[in-house]
Amino acid sequence: MFLSTPFSDVIDRVEGTLASPDNVYERHLSAMAEMYEDAEAVAAAGDPVIYKVYEKKIPELAGELQWCMSVTLPGKIGREYYMTKGHFHEVRDTAEIYLCVRGTGYMLMETEDGQSKALEMNPDVAVYVPARWAHRSVNTGGEPLISFCVYPGDAGHDYGTIETEGFRKRIVEIDGRPAIIDNRPSS
Amino acid sequence: MFLSTPFSDVIDRVEGTLASPDNVYERHLSAMAEMYEDAEAVAAAGDPVIYKVYEKKIPELAGELQWCMSVTLPGKIGREYYMTKGHFHEVRDTAEIYLCVRGTGYMLMETEDGQSKALEMNPDVAVYVPARWAHRSVNTGGEPLISFCVYPGDAGHDYGTIETEGFRKRIVEIDGRPAIIDNRPSS
Repeated sequence: MFLSTPFSDVIDRVEGTLASPDNVYERHLSAMAEMYEDAEAVAAAGDPVIYKVYEKKIPELAGELQWCMSVTLPGKIGREYYMTKGHFHEVRDTAEIYLCVRGTGYMLMETEDGQSKALEMNPDVAVYVPARWAHRSVNTGGEPLISFCVYPGDAGHDYGTIETEGFRKRIVEIDGRPAIIDNRPSS
Repeated sequence: MFLSTPFSDVIDRVEGTLASPDNVYERHLSAMAEMYEDAEAVAAAGDPVIYKVYEKKIPELAGELQWCMSVTLPGKIGREYYMTKGHFHEVRDTAEIYLCVRGTGYMLMETEDGQSKALEMNPDVAVYVPARWAHRSVNTGGEPLISFCVYPGDAGHDYGTIETEGFRKRIVEIDGRPAIIDNRPSS
């Protein structure tokens, strides 16, 4: 069943919340510990919240639009910046748009056939993640990295190789600045 | 062909522009003169720009996402506020999301079977226009009403009955305030 009644909600560009979310989840380090390169730094970090998502409940149908607020907190695990787990869409031929409303960082993206791309995120930057590109937000700044995100209703999430092998690139701090380094080979 | 390369662009929340639009159009009063109730006021108004749209060129495929900036200028034709033409989607089972970034007004919506709904728009309000609802932005304030809009790649536009019979409701100024009045019967 498609949604039948228009509605609105209010985003908070400072906190990254929705006034009336249907679902909120917080991703702790323990749920993605093996994604960071530095196991000792993971062990020493305790179990901080790395990112939060505020979602609306939308039917999972093509033609509907999922939307959420994504909040990646500032911080590092060793030299590696806080980041989201990242995912492909289960329905591969579905895009996603992120409108950054606060903070500084990167949208790190890659394809299954080995292409990689990182685009800078700052307030008022809209990033188009094409179909078939896995995507991860990385916060390289000192405040929360917050985006308003929209994607097709049926897209779904597939962590796939991201969960077992990670992204091909990592974003780490070197000499006080963000650097994009290899994790595993790109094409 | 689906888009194959990620990209970004920058929105201007004050002007409503995109830094690198692929297409810009301005809708003048003459292109929608018959939509206003007051023919004498139309004739006296000259031919002002009523609204502008800044678009990205995205393949018209399900799974892709069209996005644009919509700028409805402030003003009235007689007592009726400046508004967009409004449309259904050609593919009826497709939704749309408007994130208001500046201004004050309404998203006026209706279905072919006669339901009507108006939701207030203010900065940081996100409006979900469900599938099968025609939608029109109405600027009831003194500055541009600007939204960041996202809709499915294949949605298309269909002016349908809107062009010949108008919306069922009009939004006009009465005693210095916006009022929603009947134009033709609702269910």
